[in-house]
Amino acid sequence: MKYAVIGTGAVGGFYGGKLANAGKEVHFLMHSDYEYVKKNGLQIDSCDGSFHIDNPHVYNDTNEMPQVDVVIVALKTTRNHLLSQLLPPLLHKETLVLLIQNGIGPEPKLQKLFPNLYLAAGLAFICSAKTEPGRVNHQCYGSINIGNYSCKNEAIFGQLITDFTEAGIQTAQIEYEEARWKKAVWNMPFNGMTVVMNAQTNQLLSNPSTMQLIRRQMLEVIGAAQALGVKNIDESFADKMIQNTLDMTPYSPSMKLDYDFHRPMEIEYLYSNAIAEAHKVGFTMPCLEMLEAQLKFLQEKNLQKANSL
Amino acid sequence: MKYAVIGTGAVGGFYGGKLANAGKEVHFLMHSDYEYVKKNGLQIDSCDGSFHIDNPHVYNDTNEMPQVDVVIVALKTTRNHLLSQLLPPLLHKETLVLLIQNGIGPEPKLQKLFPNLYLAAGLAFICSAKTEPGRVNHQCYGSINIGNYSCKNEAIFGQLITDFTEAGIQTAQIEYEEARWKKAVWNMPFNGMTVVMNAQTNQLLSNPSTMQLIRRQMLEVIGAAQALGVKNIDESFADKMIQNTLDMTPYSPSMKLDYDFHRPMEIEYLYSNAIAEAHKVGFTMPCLEMLEAQLKFLQEKNLQKANSL
Repeated sequence: MKYAVIGTGAVGGFYGGKLANAGKEVHFLMHSDYEYVKKNGLQIDSCDGSFHIDNPHVYNDTNEMPQVDVVIVALKTTRNHLLSQLLPPLLHKETLVLLIQNGIGPEPKLQKLFPNLYLAAGLAFICSAKTEPGRVNHQCYGSINIGNYSCKNEAIFGQLITDFTEAGIQTAQIEYEEARWKKAVWNMPFNGMTVVMNAQTNQLLSNPSTMQLIRRQMLEVIGAAQALGVKNIDESFADKMIQNTLDMTPYSPSMKLDYDFHRPMEIEYLYSNAIAEAHKVGFTMPCLEMLEAQLKFLQEKNLQKANSL
Repeated sequence: MKYAVIGTGAVGGFYGGKLANAGKEVHFLMHSDYEYVKKNGLQIDSCDGSFHIDNPHVYNDTNEMPQVDVVIVALKTTRNHLLSQLLPPLLHKETLVLLIQNGIGPEPKLQKLFPNLYLAAGLAFICSAKTEPGRVNHQCYGSINIGNYSCKNEAIFGQLITDFTEAGIQTAQIEYEEARWKKAVWNMPFNGMTVVMNAQTNQLLSNPSTMQLIRRQMLEVIGAAQALGVKNIDESFADKMIQNTLDMTPYSPSMKLDYDFHRPMEIEYLYSNAIAEAHKVGFTMPCLEMLEAQLKFLQEKNLQKANSL
């Protein structure tokens, strides 16, 4: 199996790096880090054991990359408009595209552009950050839930699960909707609240008022998922996510980093799409809809500031 | 009629000043401004015509003040624990205490301490701020809704309305609960949201997302009031409040100023009491309960910062 990674950052760099480190053939698309990684390789500082990829296959143009069996997309969803250009050179007839992205709805949107493409969702429970060029800091966790959206080639899909597992990644195959909504239970409260409150996860959980609010927001997501018919998700999952977060080192989710660095936040996929899906079945998430509005307000101010810098 | 004003700030200074300027006998309790006002008088810069009170009756101790017919309390509710000490020297058997304060529930709480005291609520629709010692800046509006809570002396209550009106204050007598909840329709969204979003009223209304959110929060208050049996309050009142706010100059409500100056915010009376009253009849205000939690989180950080300054 040949792999390509589009978006070699905190997430794509980690999972692609793990695969390469396990001897899989991985081709990395790089942007700002291209020259650096070509020269110096890719460094993964990991709580599970650090490692270095000496001579990774790196590119700065997908037209120069080979066709592959699996494309791992680890871009922020704010950049998904690039995929219509980036993907075609990488695809053969059976290529599976795995979107390791947060939020609700990236697969159906991409499927409209590529009706016959095999798609799957990867939901990563990981704390990691790209700290400098060619260097990923993996702080903790790292498991991934993979849900099949439209892949009809069972051999490739199965091999993907096997390869991830062989690379030392804790990998589970679960239903597509379950995979996306379970991750939303963590993402929707913590990404927005760390931005609006200007705080890390641990601060939000050490104050009783915001701790309760986070739980209430998690229950809104679980309620929406249940209303949409998603299985294997109930109130106990909120408690598990809170406990996992309490066990983590203080963490700034990706949206908080995006905001702090004046980059666009993933409001559309993390909030608007989820809210719209829930509305389709008559379910509202008042606290998360409020959070979406607060984020849109802050986004407007924040990008104005970025433009004036 | 003799008046006393406790809390001679943006609100007490304005209404007390208007009464004194109309020739009423008003005794002002002052704290930090005592020496300045004793020497220089009280200046009201007002959109309706500025004026100066040359030699106001000022005190820094209620024990030195006369008994009066009406005590106007214009303290922040965060200081209401002082009233058990401040009030007794001012009271005769028929004294009416008018609480010009925001929020839900200050009268029942004070009534427990003074079971036979005559109490009324004053809800001021006013944009004003104390800009420097002995100086109030009245930017716009200024009407007051007065609701009788427990005053059995109709003569004093009626004279209060007459005196306010003669002093050029647009004064309406409405039902007590209606008075408190109508003001909450403006207060609950704007006080908290200006703090959490670090924005003035006009910025919140010029962004479509926060504009909608503000309206949703107003409808939560109106829903709670209706559930509690409050009359003369429906959806149209939200539209009126939004239109009034659009017509205002950009404004920072008192809670925003309290936050910016690291003073305690009136979370208890403006949010917690209103939320608790609504819960008693099974009504929840999810967005405002979320706002309360966000404010409590910010309050904790803000007062820590104040203590370390």
